[in-house]
Amino acid sequence: MNKTTSAASLLISAVLVGLQTPLQPIQSALGFSIFGYTCVDYLIPKVGAVFIKRGIFGKDMSKVGRPIIPETIGVIPALVYLLVMFFYIPFLFARKGNNGGGGEADASAFSHSKLSSYLSSLLSLESMILLGLMDDLFDIRWRHKFFLPAIASIPLLIVYHFEFNQTSILLPKFISNAFQLSTSVDLGVLYYFYMAAVSIFCPNSINILAGINGLEVGQTLVIAVLLVINDLYYIVGYFLEDHLIQSAFEVHMFSLCFLIPFLGISLALYKYNKFPAKVFVGDTWCYFSGMVFAVIGISGHFAKTLMLFFLPQILNFVYSSPQLFGIVPCPRHRLPKFNESDGLLYNSYTEYEDSEESAESSDGKKKQLRPYLKPVFNLLEKMYLIKLVRNEKGEIVKSSNLTLINLVIIWFGPRNEGKLCTLIMQLQFAVGLLMLILRHTLAPTVFGFDNSWSMLNRFYIS
Amino acid sequence: MNKTTSAASLLISAVLVGLQTPLQPIQSALGFSIFGYTCVDYLIPKVGAVFIKRGIFGKDMSKVGRPIIPETIGVIPALVYLLVMFFYIPFLFARKGNNGGGGEADASAFSHSKLSSYLSSLLSLESMILLGLMDDLFDIRWRHKFFLPAIASIPLLIVYHFEFNQTSILLPKFISNAFQLSTSVDLGVLYYFYMAAVSIFCPNSINILAGINGLEVGQTLVIAVLLVINDLYYIVGYFLEDHLIQSAFEVHMFSLCFLIPFLGISLALYKYNKFPAKVFVGDTWCYFSGMVFAVIGISGHFAKTLMLFFLPQILNFVYSSPQLFGIVPCPRHRLPKFNESDGLLYNSYTEYEDSEESAESSDGKKKQLRPYLKPVFNLLEKMYLIKLVRNEKGEIVKSSNLTLINLVIIWFGPRNEGKLCTLIMQLQFAVGLLMLILRHTLAPTVFGFDNSWSMLNRFYIS
Repeated sequence: MNKTTSAASLLISAVLVGLQTPLQPIQSALGFSIFGYTCVDYLIPKVGAVFIKRGIFGKDMSKVGRPIIPETIGVIPALVYLLVMFFYIPFLFARKGNNGGGGEADASAFSHSKLSSYLSSLLSLESMILLGLMDDLFDIRWRHKFFLPAIASIPLLIVYHFEFNQTSILLPKFISNAFQLSTSVDLGVLYYFYMAAVSIFCPNSINILAGINGLEVGQTLVIAVLLVINDLYYIVGYFLEDHLIQSAFEVHMFSLCFLIPFLGISLALYKYNKFPAKVFVGDTWCYFSGMVFAVIGISGHFAKTLMLFFLPQILNFVYSSPQLFGIVPCPRHRLPKFNESDGLLYNSYTEYEDSEESAESSDGKKKQLRPYLKPVFNLLEKMYLIKLVRNEKGEIVKSSNLTLINLVIIWFGPRNEGKLCTLIMQLQFAVGLLMLILRHTLAPTVFGFDNSWSMLNRFYIS
Repeated sequence: MNKTTSAASLLISAVLVGLQTPLQPIQSALGFSIFGYTCVDYLIPKVGAVFIKRGIFGKDMSKVGRPIIPETIGVIPALVYLLVMFFYIPFLFARKGNNGGGGEADASAFSHSKLSSYLSSLLSLESMILLGLMDDLFDIRWRHKFFLPAIASIPLLIVYHFEFNQTSILLPKFISNAFQLSTSVDLGVLYYFYMAAVSIFCPNSINILAGINGLEVGQTLVIAVLLVINDLYYIVGYFLEDHLIQSAFEVHMFSLCFLIPFLGISLALYKYNKFPAKVFVGDTWCYFSGMVFAVIGISGHFAKTLMLFFLPQILNFVYSSPQLFGIVPCPRHRLPKFNESDGLLYNSYTEYEDSEESAESSDGKKKQLRPYLKPVFNLLEKMYLIKLVRNEKGEIVKSSNLTLINLVIIWFGPRNEGKLCTLIMQLQFAVGLLMLILRHTLAPTVFGFDNSWSMLNRFYIS
């Protein structure tokens, strides 16, 4: 952006934030979103050189010459997001002692009692940024860093326990009928382990669906847009039909207030991270963005719906798990292979030791494919779920790496990096939209009613 | 600590935290303090090597051979402190809807409504750690970093505005009498600038009183102990005399709950930072610890009393300001000079250009002493406030650097680094204790009554 556009967008955001209309606080959220975009767009080019100077950079493997670009830039939009969310507070909450319409008209969207939920959400996000930064700086061991999001979720969970302590989840009707159970089951303390698991899952699943320019930010953009659609479904429904409940409306307004500014800062980051990337986002971004979704799902009590929008990440995790857990040998990098001559990305492979090479050579980089996996691999190959390379004796010597990115290349052929990222985002959006439709058509049948509404109703009765 | 002592202290802390006695929540605070100490004591030796490997280290200038030791280690106790304060929440606050003695006896110290104050305090502390870390990593420019604490104080100030919006300060009686004013004056929005100034002042003043092993942590320990004494004065007074007010009691309990765990983690850091230092604390620590004090002063509405305990830092700032603002030339480092032969620290000096050297040589490192400063320096010398070195013509060629550390060396002679640090801490404690006594003897006369009590009374009437 040049100076004129920046000034104009700052002006627009100030008007949106400040002007009292019936569209508040969504209008403020849009204002803060534009403000966040402008800040991030201004800051990233400024700080890139400083990051490189400080040794915080990475090599872009899928480019000619493997250029060095700054790493961990995701911390910049994350910090801007926090700042924006601090300034958003006065536009969201009623003053203390001014709840529920006193003499003076108060346009605030939420009662004062939701302030501590909001603050604890920000504490969890800030903790996540801090821990993510520590991880990017000090390369914390994998088995430790896996749990960092659970630590970051502590303030959120403690305040949740304090404010609501609603620990029931709904069961599908056929299960409660079959086992003569009630329609909901109180998980008690287990509920907190479930929530901690959600907060571990979201950041880590984003972290492992990565490796090509733009995908880390791109996938969070898609999830955020899907969540916004889901929120709007409730909010528009609230105005159109009277059977929808005030509390569901409030929960989804709360979610929108987190998501709209998030979209602004993510778009600015995407501008610099998309192909050809000028910056890398770092683990900090994956942690932060995953935590934003976890916070929204936990504080809104709709973690199960949230999981629907993570389906591609779940599939990627399941598909990757044989390599992640060491059943299939896992190379250091599993990125698709860049071909300098045509500029396209091809499948990358794990190579296996020939069965005739001596068993003692296991110190080498190649490992043997476990015998019982061979029929499995042959079957997967027939289902177009893996690509195998055989030697003249018909033995498997290479198999494509088990990542969603490689799978998309198997299905759709080699592509340019930018187009591959766009394709994956499109697939992700299509799957998410399908889940969204199923969620609001099938769920009422399976659970006996659309669970989140009645759930939220009970949840907010206090 | 060896494993047995660690296990024992973890056990003791668990008992203190968990056991329900009338001494809660102070007893929990002690438990968390011991827990924090144990964690920090365990972590610092583990992470030191990782910091050095990542390029985060400094040279210890006042040692033979100028060894390299890890820098920015203050982030470790800061993170442990946050974690401890998260887990402390359930021990501090009443459950929602359980305020003011329902059927069930609730031993919590504070009403649920103070939770958002607490959370916003933690948000400010966490923001400060994050910004401090950015500063340590990227060497933010001095004129920018000066304002970082004001940014970090935003969540605290916004929630303060929301919850209390108490913006009056008391005037001394003789002023209100002389100008026919009321005893308190409402500063309105200026009050928030005043609070932002307090949060800028605390971290930065700690940051500039530094340069010898242990002093950054040592001075925060002394301030924390003084604040604890002040808090205990109110709390013990509450039990002994009935003219003390419940709300003053609550404010100082709140302050104690922040300070006691802070003392634990600070002591563990001091163990590694004291002479001979094994780690440096970094700007992160100065920011963090300063912000802890600012948060306590702001949320407890006793910023003026807080300033009394910063008197040595204020004096150091005033004494340093001619060099900080460029009136007197300022060398790159102003640390005392280490003499390898006897291992003692001596005064360090700023050297001046000879008046006969050519005026054009001003590109060189030495600068001329401005002529009008010469009589001032001669006067200061007579008052033992500066040490001057003259050439054979009687012209000033060197003057001791204007820091409190140099001043203490002028008064008490050269010392070993460890003893110098202890001496400064003792002086600081003596001055602070004097201020504390004056505060509770003179203040009632000057303000017409002991201001904080009645102030707090009005402040908490809501």
